[in-house]
Amino acid sequence: MRISALAAAADLPVATVKYYLREGLLHPGVATSATQATYDDSHVRRIRLIRALTGPVGLSVQQARTILGLVDDPGDDLYATLGRAVSALPPPVDEASVDDPDPYPRARAALEALGQVYDPHYAAVAQLEAALAATEDAGMPISDARLRAYGHQLHELAEYDLERMPQEPHSAVEYTVLGTALYEPVILALRRLAHQDVAARRALGG
Amino acid sequence: MRISALAAAADLPVATVKYYLREGLLHPGVATSATQATYDDSHVRRIRLIRALTGPVGLSVQQARTILGLVDDPGDDLYATLGRAVSALPPPVDEASVDDPDPYPRARAALEALGQVYDPHYAAVAQLEAALAATEDAGMPISDARLRAYGHQLHELAEYDLERMPQEPHSAVEYTVLGTALYEPVILALRRLAHQDVAARRALGG
Repeated sequence: MRISALAAAADLPVATVKYYLREGLLHPGVATSATQATYDDSHVRRIRLIRALTGPVGLSVQQARTILGLVDDPGDDLYATLGRAVSALPPPVDEASVDDPDPYPRARAALEALGQVYDPHYAAVAQLEAALAATEDAGMPISDARLRAYGHQLHELAEYDLERMPQEPHSAVEYTVLGTALYEPVILALRRLAHQDVAARRALGG
Repeated sequence: MRISALAAAADLPVATVKYYLREGLLHPGVATSATQATYDDSHVRRIRLIRALTGPVGLSVQQARTILGLVDDPGDDLYATLGRAVSALPPPVDEASVDDPDPYPRARAALEALGQVYDPHYAAVAQLEAALAATEDAGMPISDARLRAYGHQLHELAEYDLERMPQEPHSAVEYTVLGTALYEPVILALRRLAHQDVAARRALGG
């Protein structure tokens, strides 16, 4: 199909499709002349994936390009690939100074309290530090009891996710990278709705 | 203190403090002359809260203003206040057409499968719909088994949260509105780190 048909199939303006092509999020079509190219279902599927990442997941086009680049070309080390993916996800964090012997004291204390194995260079450590600091700055610090309760539930969720990881390397990358990004908005929406369910049952005396 | 001292205490440029004042996120100081005002610790605390919401929580200044406005002036109905707060949180969703009898089919099916009480007008329903549609568009739909597993864990989290809600109305609003926004980045970071812990233990055969 031509670019106009691709844009129509994706329900987007042609200018947006051209923008994705220019920014390297969408692979080029097959050239049919000096100024025209033809596109197929792989382009439609890719645009859906771009829209999922830039929509509910809330990534910028640059962040989505990083995530898609890792899925397209993951390298040999799933662990390193997932690390790069997580650092492209919000919240953005600054790299710690190499001179700082304890750059993430809140996250370190939390992970020690939970008894979890962690790599201090993994971006999620700095993200946890920033998230915990924000709760303190807002005057609503997370208590040790709450941390243990949250940590326990999220560890069960993580066990579930890891048990279902595909064996085949490329599928494993897609599952971990896209699953991390795409399932997070589902988790937050489910938490908000679980609050409503619990509150409604209490109000009804249920 | 003067605005320059307030900016220094908050580690921000004076221009940013003036921007928060102009946008109504920060309450005015006490005027000491036609062109000067004096600020106190309440302003320092408020700026920390603004930074927490616009930093790790990832809100825009407009979204943060909505959240802070609800905390400052919650009205009489905690349920309605929380509903307005949730609709100011990402992901942004369009309002459903009044003519559409079933605007959120994926979210409805999910909440029915979980047996949860919900108000179809609550913004989190539309947010769940968008999040579930994104997983389908990306070719990684959430299975019924995964939905039940996630739903169960997040319901336990919600029970924990509701059990600890303060009785006093103004504290209850702060707890529900700010707790929803501020604890979400903690939950996502903990999930990412739980994945790492589970993966590391499996690699070690633990």
